[in-house]
Amino acid sequence: MIKQEIKKEEYIKIIPLGGLGEIGRNMMILEYKGKILIIDMGLRFPEENMPGIDYIIPNVSYLENKRRDILAVVITHGHYDHIGAIPYLIERIGNPPIYASNLARGIILKRQEEFNTNSKLKITIVKNESHIKAGPFEIEFFRQNHNIPETLGLFIKTPIGNFIYTSDFKFDKNPINDLPTDFKKLKDIGKKNILCLMADSTGAEEEGHSLSEKTIEKNLEEIFKSAKGRIIAATFSSLLNRIQQLINLSEKYKRKVCIEGYSMRTNVDIAKALGYLKLKSDTFINVKEIDKYPDSKITILCTGAQGEDHAALMRIVNKEHKFLRLKKGDEVIFSSSVIPGNERTVQAVKDELYRQKVKVYHYKIMDIHAGGHAQKEELKEMIKIIRPKFFMPVHGQVSMLATHGEIAEDAGVKKENIIIANNGQIIDVNQNEFSFEKKTAPSNYIMVDGLGIGDVGEIVLRDRQMLSKDGMFVIVAVVDRLTGQVKGSPDIISRGFIYLRESKDLLSQTRKKVINIINSTAGKGGAVNWTYVKNEVRDKIGQFLFSKTERRPIILPVIIEV
Amino acid sequence: MIKQEIKKEEYIKIIPLGGLGEIGRNMMILEYKGKILIIDMGLRFPEENMPGIDYIIPNVSYLENKRRDILAVVITHGHYDHIGAIPYLIERIGNPPIYASNLARGIILKRQEEFNTNSKLKITIVKNESHIKAGPFEIEFFRQNHNIPETLGLFIKTPIGNFIYTSDFKFDKNPINDLPTDFKKLKDIGKKNILCLMADSTGAEEEGHSLSEKTIEKNLEEIFKSAKGRIIAATFSSLLNRIQQLINLSEKYKRKVCIEGYSMRTNVDIAKALGYLKLKSDTFINVKEIDKYPDSKITILCTGAQGEDHAALMRIVNKEHKFLRLKKGDEVIFSSSVIPGNERTVQAVKDELYRQKVKVYHYKIMDIHAGGHAQKEELKEMIKIIRPKFFMPVHGQVSMLATHGEIAEDAGVKKENIIIANNGQIIDVNQNEFSFEKKTAPSNYIMVDGLGIGDVGEIVLRDRQMLSKDGMFVIVAVVDRLTGQVKGSPDIISRGFIYLRESKDLLSQTRKKVINIINSTAGKGGAVNWTYVKNEVRDKIGQFLFSKTERRPIILPVIIEV
Repeated sequence: MIKQEIKKEEYIKIIPLGGLGEIGRNMMILEYKGKILIIDMGLRFPEENMPGIDYIIPNVSYLENKRRDILAVVITHGHYDHIGAIPYLIERIGNPPIYASNLARGIILKRQEEFNTNSKLKITIVKNESHIKAGPFEIEFFRQNHNIPETLGLFIKTPIGNFIYTSDFKFDKNPINDLPTDFKKLKDIGKKNILCLMADSTGAEEEGHSLSEKTIEKNLEEIFKSAKGRIIAATFSSLLNRIQQLINLSEKYKRKVCIEGYSMRTNVDIAKALGYLKLKSDTFINVKEIDKYPDSKITILCTGAQGEDHAALMRIVNKEHKFLRLKKGDEVIFSSSVIPGNERTVQAVKDELYRQKVKVYHYKIMDIHAGGHAQKEELKEMIKIIRPKFFMPVHGQVSMLATHGEIAEDAGVKKENIIIANNGQIIDVNQNEFSFEKKTAPSNYIMVDGLGIGDVGEIVLRDRQMLSKDGMFVIVAVVDRLTGQVKGSPDIISRGFIYLRESKDLLSQTRKKVINIINSTAGKGGAVNWTYVKNEVRDKIGQFLFSKTERRPIILPVIIEV
Repeated sequence: MIKQEIKKEEYIKIIPLGGLGEIGRNMMILEYKGKILIIDMGLRFPEENMPGIDYIIPNVSYLENKRRDILAVVITHGHYDHIGAIPYLIERIGNPPIYASNLARGIILKRQEEFNTNSKLKITIVKNESHIKAGPFEIEFFRQNHNIPETLGLFIKTPIGNFIYTSDFKFDKNPINDLPTDFKKLKDIGKKNILCLMADSTGAEEEGHSLSEKTIEKNLEEIFKSAKGRIIAATFSSLLNRIQQLINLSEKYKRKVCIEGYSMRTNVDIAKALGYLKLKSDTFINVKEIDKYPDSKITILCTGAQGEDHAALMRIVNKEHKFLRLKKGDEVIFSSSVIPGNERTVQAVKDELYRQKVKVYHYKIMDIHAGGHAQKEELKEMIKIIRPKFFMPVHGQVSMLATHGEIAEDAGVKKENIIIANNGQIIDVNQNEFSFEKKTAPSNYIMVDGLGIGDVGEIVLRDRQMLSKDGMFVIVAVVDRLTGQVKGSPDIISRGFIYLRESKDLLSQTRKKVINIINSTAGKGGAVNWTYVKNEVRDKIGQFLFSKTERRPIILPVIIEV
């Protein structure tokens, strides 16, 4: 390795704002002397213990007083875990210029329509071999295989050295709707003295090599070859290459294709309009035309492979779809992995399909889905090709980052040059070494719930969890200002605790207790400490209800003086 | 097959009350001329959309006016999905005699201590080759391999023909703590002209043969051989055979064993007292003695392999355990499968372990767990050995039952003799045919929440789901009885909706709206339709809050006339 002399105070700051120790919410900062390059702005989906939350997005407060120094946002591909936070955050960081592929741009702009925003996005289209210069950063884009067209890796020249950001990728010699991995290009890059490789770790715990799309196609074709009824294929709307595959097979077997589900239709429309889906002009039909064709000439391509509540497949299965019902002879294909946490909902759909006696194919039965992420062998190969000095695993749970680190060691990177970081850590890298700054950037979850961004915090979430477990119990008592005594019978309103109509005894006992507690605590009128009285009601009624039910509803006493 | 003449009206009723189309809650009825035999009384765990629910148990109302005709409850093994509903239901069905193995009996009695019940359980101990007679039913027990000792299959003679109930089973030629599968015995049974085989379907979607415990032991031994620090092994407390294995290895490698976690300690105590765990008298040590030994001589056997909130492993990882903290050199073994739906919590523990830099082994890294259920090849072999006329898959999701049905066809059972049923269906079987009765037995979920059994129904659950998504919003307005006008400012109490302290504007706007709605709807005093007024408040404030937040809290208006 050729050593260049650089001043000691010269270094690149790497600041991951999301995507490390989690799946999704990918956002990375490179900073040189205060000048900032941003890579991706993604969202992620909430955990099970975050009821009501729509998305989680990165915390960008580190950037907020640095708006003028943000030179560019570079987007690697059009998936929501890489672009989904743009509408929530781009204005807050001063609406900097965005660089994205034509397809990613189309998806970003389409999504933007759902938001009321003042400023127009400034997106420049880039593609394989595009060069851009943003202050001290020179970026060359190179194509990567993934499961959406135009996924771009980044070769970033900086005054300190050369960085590679792989984006999501896998190696595929027989991809669909895409060229095979360009190993020659990667090898050329590998010769360019790479200081630091940042690589996708999503598949780091999976042995071997990701399945080739060729295998998937072969298996899917088996189904198409033998199916006599309709084929209903459910997949992610973002897996455009899988969608292309299913369209290709439908055309080959003379099936018309009906697209069902809002996000599927939206993505297909964008991709088709921009030329990323190739099909004959008469392949697509409207769902209303389905009965004009025999069942053996119909493919329904739909959302719902994860058992999502209102997705097209669910509506069909639950007999809620406006036009479609399952019928004998239908063959349903789940062409996607099951996202961890969704196993039970997917099982529920599968069961309902079996109950309705249609044929079901899923990944356990045959290989009809390939992941979009490089697995152990590919990851090792990538590192061996690039031969970086420093290696930083990105995108993935801690266990995946750690395992990717072990892979890098295997591939020849020195242990002390492997950077396993957390979101928010600030990593200073120069040509010789890296170090973590003591200071960190805020990187906590920013939760999106309806129109609120970041307004649901720990307290609201904890209340939601408590409410969901044992419900709530409101007690409204009217108290005579003069005597301090309860007037009439307290009102009780409860939800999610017990079925009130069948608990009349418990309620009347509770009312009596409330009256006793207030009357004895409030004393004989005059200056009453109502906070104390309310706490007494809350504690004692809480204990009473627990003793009767072993449940702990949230108890909310309201006392009204008249 | 030898045909016996039987009268047409003579038949056996098979009534599954649980376990079909679900994992757990196994309970099956066989009925002959009103005389009833019950097989197992299990519980299951709630789905994600059942917040606050502890367990789900079978609905036994079919049995309630037939108490005197219940001849016996036969228990196949001591796992909660087969015995867990006993304390909730046994009195309701008249406390009939129970037949269980010595170990299952110990577990049942231990659990019973946690409940306040009047009647004493009447349990008779049975074992391999025991015969019992219960009215028209003659039952012979035969041993099966599973992951708890003394798992018993049932050979049931009835006046109509012979039934086999496999219980949970797998074929293992090298089991731990158990004899190998007795194929000779099974073959003898197969010669006895079996009318109907009811077999465990849990593994029906898994290819091939379940892993032998020999493989597991070999892999676990690799870890024990090389580990220099403490070994922390997490598994289910019910997997007594795995626990035995880990104890054996600890003894072989001169490690003391410390048992952590309430359910682990309870099960180990029972099994040890009854002679089902074999160990040296000085193998177990108390957690407080751990520091007396070098790390390389310590095994900690604990609960928490599913990332359960308060399990021992979680307390260790989260630094909440009274005596134990992770330290460098520790090696943590997850020796269990991940129950569908628990993937995210397990990932979270794994991540925290990686973050604390200890070595982690889980089933993805090497085969250190074998399931307790027969897979495709074993299931096929069982059917081929037993050669039943009718085949009824039990225990499992619909997709598993359906797949098990296909396996049976493969194994030579006629398609029209395969009984794929739902919980609650009543199946009449005679020697020639089976049919579903039009009548069904109630088989809906009975939910246990704290002390309440069956008192949480659809309404309470739906409220909990709504509360968990967007919280609640209580409005208390005091209205002057004479004028019908609101006095003062309405009180607002909200939880789980927004953080009130940061939403003062929204609250004051809401208060004004409430006053306007009430004042204009209630009119000028006199007889007011308060239900109508409250509905108006609920609807209009609901719309208002949605327009401001896109959230839909449960709105509860309270109006107090003074």
